[in-house]
Amino acid sequence: MALVVKKPDSRMAAEVATIPECVLPEPGCVQRQYATLFDGPSQLVLEGGATIGPLTVAYETYGQLSPRKDNAIYICHALTGDAHVSGRNTPQDRKPGWWDGFVGPGKAIDTDKYFVICSNVLGGCQGTTGPSSVDPATGVPYGPDFPFITIRDIVAVHNALLDYLGIGKVLAVVGGSLGGMQALEWAISRPDRASAIVLLASGPRLSAQGIAFNAVGRRAIYADPLFREGRYYAADEKPRFGLALARMIAHITYLSEQSIELKFGRRLQNGDQFAYDLRAETEFQIESYLHYQGKAFVDRFDANSYLTLTRSMDYFDLTERNGSLANAFSQTQCRFLVVSYTSDWLFPTSQSEEIVRALIEARRHVTFFELTSPYGHDAFLIDSELPKLERLVVPFLGRAYQDTRVGRL
Amino acid sequence: MALVVKKPDSRMAAEVATIPECVLPEPGCVQRQYATLFDGPSQLVLEGGATIGPLTVAYETYGQLSPRKDNAIYICHALTGDAHVSGRNTPQDRKPGWWDGFVGPGKAIDTDKYFVICSNVLGGCQGTTGPSSVDPATGVPYGPDFPFITIRDIVAVHNALLDYLGIGKVLAVVGGSLGGMQALEWAISRPDRASAIVLLASGPRLSAQGIAFNAVGRRAIYADPLFREGRYYAADEKPRFGLALARMIAHITYLSEQSIELKFGRRLQNGDQFAYDLRAETEFQIESYLHYQGKAFVDRFDANSYLTLTRSMDYFDLTERNGSLANAFSQTQCRFLVVSYTSDWLFPTSQSEEIVRALIEARRHVTFFELTSPYGHDAFLIDSELPKLERLVVPFLGRAYQDTRVGRL
Repeated sequence: MALVVKKPDSRMAAEVATIPECVLPEPGCVQRQYATLFDGPSQLVLEGGATIGPLTVAYETYGQLSPRKDNAIYICHALTGDAHVSGRNTPQDRKPGWWDGFVGPGKAIDTDKYFVICSNVLGGCQGTTGPSSVDPATGVPYGPDFPFITIRDIVAVHNALLDYLGIGKVLAVVGGSLGGMQALEWAISRPDRASAIVLLASGPRLSAQGIAFNAVGRRAIYADPLFREGRYYAADEKPRFGLALARMIAHITYLSEQSIELKFGRRLQNGDQFAYDLRAETEFQIESYLHYQGKAFVDRFDANSYLTLTRSMDYFDLTERNGSLANAFSQTQCRFLVVSYTSDWLFPTSQSEEIVRALIEARRHVTFFELTSPYGHDAFLIDSELPKLERLVVPFLGRAYQDTRVGRL
Repeated sequence: MALVVKKPDSRMAAEVATIPECVLPEPGCVQRQYATLFDGPSQLVLEGGATIGPLTVAYETYGQLSPRKDNAIYICHALTGDAHVSGRNTPQDRKPGWWDGFVGPGKAIDTDKYFVICSNVLGGCQGTTGPSSVDPATGVPYGPDFPFITIRDIVAVHNALLDYLGIGKVLAVVGGSLGGMQALEWAISRPDRASAIVLLASGPRLSAQGIAFNAVGRRAIYADPLFREGRYYAADEKPRFGLALARMIAHITYLSEQSIELKFGRRLQNGDQFAYDLRAETEFQIESYLHYQGKAFVDRFDANSYLTLTRSMDYFDLTERNGSLANAFSQTQCRFLVVSYTSDWLFPTSQSEEIVRALIEARRHVTFFELTSPYGHDAFLIDSELPKLERLVVPFLGRAYQDTRVGRL
């Protein structure tokens, strides 16, 4: 695979110059950047056999790359995340990035110390080439013609971005959920390009129950008449109902029973009297919350991307591909921090334990901790839960950085 | 509430006479029967305040009522069940009733000994008046105008059927899941009409997580354009996609992660090679299974009934209505057998334990057992799991019957 490597410096400077309103002091503003990859004669050959190129990759960086280029941390986002991890893109942004509580100056992943990179995944819809992007061969969005992609393909693009940025090896790859799958895949298929892996609420494969939930979510999209077999981009209306429903279903799996009880219980949305009316579709607070989540989601996400990325998640299975998990890990060269959450039922602790057992069998360096939390799968994203995670991640990264600098890792 | 009580004998005889092909020996055939209730000037006053009547109730009976009328067992079916518990309605039926492994001559609920009654619930779609029934006031199906019903209303109709059958008090009410809610409601609101309750995989209320899953299922129906706000009966096409999807979502909650792993795992439906094709919507066996379940369901169930009955389930909350669960149970006069299953996550053991604690606090007679099973919420319906349940239910019912006959219960 031949990569067209560009030096991004001048482009970055130009882009920063285009946001004069960005006058905040620390943590200041962060600018989304774009790289064009695979735009030469060699396209990216995907695991499923198709090829694709050129690709645009949207990414953000935080902090400064050290002169030795040894302090880079690549954060892999989860299913519906994006490159915007921390801070604000403009001072007017209502909310900061999706992991602002964990990444930034003086925070757990300290951007005063580390150079943090996060890119929107291949197949996504937040700046990186995906089904909603224009296919250069046709001049219209790919839609259902977007090629089938896997986690390995997503990781191949992450590594192409590293080439573009002129970084050989990252100190660490950090990811939760689908991001954790990317981190695992990275450790196995690009063992020379990461010294450490931080794996949160993830697993070596999606469980059959996880496939089942993804399948019903996809069914909701396929069954929406506005889906039009994926060719809805030119239409006035998008398959909003189907995508919102898919999100609502998935969202239940991100919460624990306990967190739903704590947050909503059986409380009603308006008053304390039952309506005795079937038309009151959001009578309970939990219903109103799920409807809100569904509606908010369709404003920022593309249905074809949802289909593409959930399927890549379904396909992920390190055991199937390598005979055994220990075999898979025998190719790795990095050290691992594996973290699970007690109330996560989408990626239960047993899945992390399976990884840890296989890493031990493969004689790899692994630290494992199950954090107690009521917040289910989403715990690694919840601000109040971050201090527990910080106590694991800060020393792990610190030691890895130290060992890297003295050539021990 | 004035009930019009009819003697059903002549009607039953006439109906049996209409199925001359029913020549099988034991267990023979069973005939679905129909009762018309609330057809006098007094209609049924529902908990939500509306009234309804006349009502047709579809029911089946098995075995013989004892001369003392003390051997009746009322089985309450779950969300999508029907009156056909056991045996076949015609010799040509491909499958027997939904609990044929547990109810019948010589079986756990032994119809050589007990007189078993099961009726389709109010609001259902399998013979008892529900949204798909013709509203006598308009001459067209109720549809969305069907009044809002609760578990208490369903139990009121069960008791009206008992009046119709001339039975004052049943030996036991047996129910799993939504059927268990009916049994609990019966114990509380009709304490004089049951000596014992058998409660399987149920709880004192639907959890917020359960409401969430019901809510997304209903959303699937509402979002189906063929739903037409519930007025689809005269249309060529029914909201099949929405109802099938609702069933697929719910079906995942009836299984355990372990049972999905055991039955399907990550196995593919055709061969062992990935298709790398998003259009392959049922590539994994679990997907194919869920699609089959969805399709089979829409052939036998009505979308408006699904909305109605899931909402009645959402509303059920014995604590809310009675201040405390112990208060609720202080009105009961029967004894209880409570059974939960280790892998049931829709009605986990903790819910049964809450009932048991409250029954003990209310100084009621309760026997509790958590059965070990990998089959999740559906375990009480799975043939291979029935022997474990039988070892609890047979002696419990036997002792209750014995105590009833000597006036101790």
